[in-house]
Amino acid sequence: MKIAVDGMGGDYAPQAIVEGAVLAAQELNVEIVLVGDEARLEREIDRLQAHKLPISICHASEVVYMDEAPGMALRKKRFSSIRVATELVRSGGAEAVVSAGNTGAAMAAATMILRRIKGIDRPAIATLLPTQKGAALMLDGGANVDCKASQLFQFGIMGHVFAKSVFRRPSPAVGLLAIGEEDSKGNDVTKEAFLLLKQSHLNFVGNVEGKHFFRGMADVVVCDGFIGNVALKMCEGFGEMFTQSLKNSLRRTLWRRLSALLVQPAFKEIRELLDPAEYGGMPLIGIHGTCIIAHGNSTPKAIKNAIQMAKRIAEEQVAERIQEELERNNDMLDAEGQGSKLWRQIRSHMSFRSEREFEEESVEPHDDPSSSRLSI
Amino acid sequence: MKIAVDGMGGDYAPQAIVEGAVLAAQELNVEIVLVGDEARLEREIDRLQAHKLPISICHASEVVYMDEAPGMALRKKRFSSIRVATELVRSGGAEAVVSAGNTGAAMAAATMILRRIKGIDRPAIATLLPTQKGAALMLDGGANVDCKASQLFQFGIMGHVFAKSVFRRPSPAVGLLAIGEEDSKGNDVTKEAFLLLKQSHLNFVGNVEGKHFFRGMADVVVCDGFIGNVALKMCEGFGEMFTQSLKNSLRRTLWRRLSALLVQPAFKEIRELLDPAEYGGMPLIGIHGTCIIAHGNSTPKAIKNAIQMAKRIAEEQVAERIQEELERNNDMLDAEGQGSKLWRQIRSHMSFRSEREFEEESVEPHDDPSSSRLSI
Repeated sequence: MKIAVDGMGGDYAPQAIVEGAVLAAQELNVEIVLVGDEARLEREIDRLQAHKLPISICHASEVVYMDEAPGMALRKKRFSSIRVATELVRSGGAEAVVSAGNTGAAMAAATMILRRIKGIDRPAIATLLPTQKGAALMLDGGANVDCKASQLFQFGIMGHVFAKSVFRRPSPAVGLLAIGEEDSKGNDVTKEAFLLLKQSHLNFVGNVEGKHFFRGMADVVVCDGFIGNVALKMCEGFGEMFTQSLKNSLRRTLWRRLSALLVQPAFKEIRELLDPAEYGGMPLIGIHGTCIIAHGNSTPKAIKNAIQMAKRIAEEQVAERIQEELERNNDMLDAEGQGSKLWRQIRSHMSFRSEREFEEESVEPHDDPSSSRLSI
Repeated sequence: MKIAVDGMGGDYAPQAIVEGAVLAAQELNVEIVLVGDEARLEREIDRLQAHKLPISICHASEVVYMDEAPGMALRKKRFSSIRVATELVRSGGAEAVVSAGNTGAAMAAATMILRRIKGIDRPAIATLLPTQKGAALMLDGGANVDCKASQLFQFGIMGHVFAKSVFRRPSPAVGLLAIGEEDSKGNDVTKEAFLLLKQSHLNFVGNVEGKHFFRGMADVVVCDGFIGNVALKMCEGFGEMFTQSLKNSLRRTLWRRLSALLVQPAFKEIRELLDPAEYGGMPLIGIHGTCIIAHGNSTPKAIKNAIQMAKRIAEEQVAERIQEELERNNDMLDAEGQGSKLWRQIRSHMSFRSEREFEEESVEPHDDPSSSRLSI
């Protein structure tokens, strides 16, 4: 399997990116296509003495920098590494793309070049989070603000497919991120989404509070991208404060400093458990193809893990399965005559929107999602 | 100063409540009016030998239980402790009310009996949170879902007054909870609220991400109650997972268990720093009078702290000051001719809504906010 890696995107590009690609080529049984400035990438390969590994270079003369407006930069820079890498996926030259560069640009490139799956209004960022029972998925993590109920429903379908194929959960529990467990709790959009999800063929477990999410009550929670992103960044900040306070407290006396040394191994375990580098990146799902958005400050290990995730998603054909699940859901409702009036209205609206937008689709990305991670 | 305390509300009522009231009467220079079943409350006073303290009992024959629908229960149970306690504030028999009972019922009673301040569409729950630079305020913490921009603006005014008078910050930094720091980031409602807050006389610091909130970048962050409540509960769950993982890791070997004993004092410090009981309760602001909603599982210490908070808010006349700030903001905009068309539209809409709703006001509470706290 060939994976295109944006060699120029990220705070430590190209060094960290090439190092990550080399690790992946050594360990993961993948071929890597590094996209970017040929001379610089070649120099990195030399430095790492990685000529014998299955790594090739595809030249791209431009770079979209972290602080550029994504849509504009993407339009202007036709030979930017992220654009060339994404086009490789469309042309069949690679099966997935990984970028640690400008998040908005990576998203816009994927949406524009790889196109949305029919029936999906907008792609979503699937954020992998640790819980007390192992990893779970929150989507949308920040790609879409102001979502409609039908979009939340689509996020549910996408999350179900992802958890089933990538996490190998036979019947993933899908919940709706909410402020109380009772069915009636929520805002206008989540209440409507509740009804849609309840009628679907998904294993819908109802409203899930953040507290229960981290206890592992659901494999997938669905939310508006604004809410998801705010919640993620709050957790990130809370974790940072918690760790900082603990550090300060452990440094207060010499005795404590010495004692703290003894429990270092336990602290290290926690750091690893909560380390975002373990997950490597956030998949953008709902498009034809595989795109992983890695964090700007990705380490080589994070890049390797992002490539592993890309491989897994491409192998499992997540995009094709999402399409199948959408159709299956429609067929089931038709066959069983269960579709309520509300659902039928929404569904017709979904397909209408979907087709219309395919025509109107513009290069402009929705918004830079400012990807958030739990950095502990 | 007299403070009415709902003696029957809370998981450990009336024991924990009466114990907390006794602590407050001993330490805080307040008079307590315990509201509830006279015989039971009397028995608790006997048990604690607190006859000489400035505590009186006001009989109320009914109780709104935790699992009751708030609006219905409040209408039916005219002699419920929460209703009688709140009515004491209206009639001048007390200056504030504290309840650890059914949150929705406490909110509904306050809104219905004490009424909203003119110019405030709906009261908000002010949630006090620890940050790396001391306490800060998030509102709304869950009283209102689906807020409009004008409501977020009002939350800003209320938060400003609260932080100024209760935290004694001379010019509180007010931010808008968002997904990026740039002015343009946000959803439809927050973008509109951004413009309103920017034109106000508040010390508006713009969009604040959760990460920066916990670093202490703002004294007040403003958000929709759905988003605020989701974010709080996510942090709560994250903190729980973090603590649980740390505990598990520290128990893994005998050596670690012994080492962990040495750092216990540091862990204790952290627990205290993040202990919700330190804050005691969440003030409901935007009403004529003072109402503190304490957590259902409040300990005596939490009740005492809630009473202290109530005293402080009543002394500082927060409600009156909110009214003044609203007027001041209007006057300034008029005088300086700065009011943009948008703002004038919103403002006229605000007063229209406000007056109309005063007439239409019903007993029905908006929703049980399922108060959330960071329990570590």
